[in-house]
Amino acid sequence: MMKLYYEKGTCALASHIALEEAGAEYSTVRVNFAVQEQRSADYLAINPKARVPSLVTDRGILTETPAMLAFIAQSFPRARLAPLDDLFGFAEVQAFNSYLCSTVHVAHAHRMRGTRWADDPAAIEAMKRKVPDSVAACFDLVESKMLKGPWVMGESYTICDAYLFTITQWLEVDGVDPTRFPKVKGHRDRMSERPAVRTALAAEAG
Amino acid sequence: MMKLYYEKGTCALASHIALEEAGAEYSTVRVNFAVQEQRSADYLAINPKARVPSLVTDRGILTETPAMLAFIAQSFPRARLAPLDDLFGFAEVQAFNSYLCSTVHVAHAHRMRGTRWADDPAAIEAMKRKVPDSVAACFDLVESKMLKGPWVMGESYTICDAYLFTITQWLEVDGVDPTRFPKVKGHRDRMSERPAVRTALAAEAG
Repeated sequence: MMKLYYEKGTCALASHIALEEAGAEYSTVRVNFAVQEQRSADYLAINPKARVPSLVTDRGILTETPAMLAFIAQSFPRARLAPLDDLFGFAEVQAFNSYLCSTVHVAHAHRMRGTRWADDPAAIEAMKRKVPDSVAACFDLVESKMLKGPWVMGESYTICDAYLFTITQWLEVDGVDPTRFPKVKGHRDRMSERPAVRTALAAEAG
Repeated sequence: MMKLYYEKGTCALASHIALEEAGAEYSTVRVNFAVQEQRSADYLAINPKARVPSLVTDRGILTETPAMLAFIAQSFPRARLAPLDDLFGFAEVQAFNSYLCSTVHVAHAHRMRGTRWADDPAAIEAMKRKVPDSVAACFDLVESKMLKGPWVMGESYTICDAYLFTITQWLEVDGVDPTRFPKVKGHRDRMSERPAVRTALAAEAG
């Protein structure tokens, strides 16, 4: 049985939703960032990066959302969470997820995690000020070039949908008005109705 | 035949090396950043993100290094560039590559691309000042926890090696002394001797 380490409001939600969609047997463990649990010796032994998510499997521990999502899709092929028999289709899924992790999530992270990239408090404030613009620029691209609809990859629901939904949870706190992006907003609304999404959100809120 | 769009000194080198290692038939096209060619209408039609790399395949265009590397490994299974028959092993490869793209490359990018995340010139300078520390922190983790040796994943050469080598090309310009990381330095030296690496570097320099 797999075990997912998560914190509320983080990108761990994407893997949580994917595990639900896959019908996996799994448990979850919250890592309480408010008391810096991610930096505890116990957690650093699981994930020396001091971040979530981490996925404990019977083969070892995995980190990094795109890798975990692809692993979940490949481990539960009957759930059809990625086009596993189509190399190019699988690569398109991976490219979308890689954009979310390396560009969209990074733009967002400059609101709360500026100390990763500068020490000067004024610089950290300057980073925060740019987040609404830099995140919106990412979503302009998602809206106009990437989200095929109704799901990210078109007619088939994939791990990309769980990941995009997770990141759209942050739009309002990042100062971005979701109504600027009707396709993204529609996607978020559709996702909110899925039982797997409701279950994952309820578990994290509970 | 695939076509790789690259610029010298960028992360496109990773895919270039992987294509060589795979024995793929491919051509390359340089995108000249000095004249902002990445923002030309012609290139934006290929990659609306205005970045490299892009890989034109007979099925369509791929972007994002981790996705392209996995696609190359899967498309040329006889080259054994990833543990394709081992879901967990493949996921470990993907987790390593995801860390490079979302954390290590991002730390590096704050030296030259600060305008992505702040408008204030003083903030951009503050970001530059932190790059030696933030990049070194990443390589501390690679050195102590990730690089198994002699290759990233141990005895088997994988796409991770091409990607790590690419990012270690930037250590000196990022103000990080490679001799602080003897395993990483040894890996870079070993990589430099591989025919595929020499061929890719020579092609990009030529």
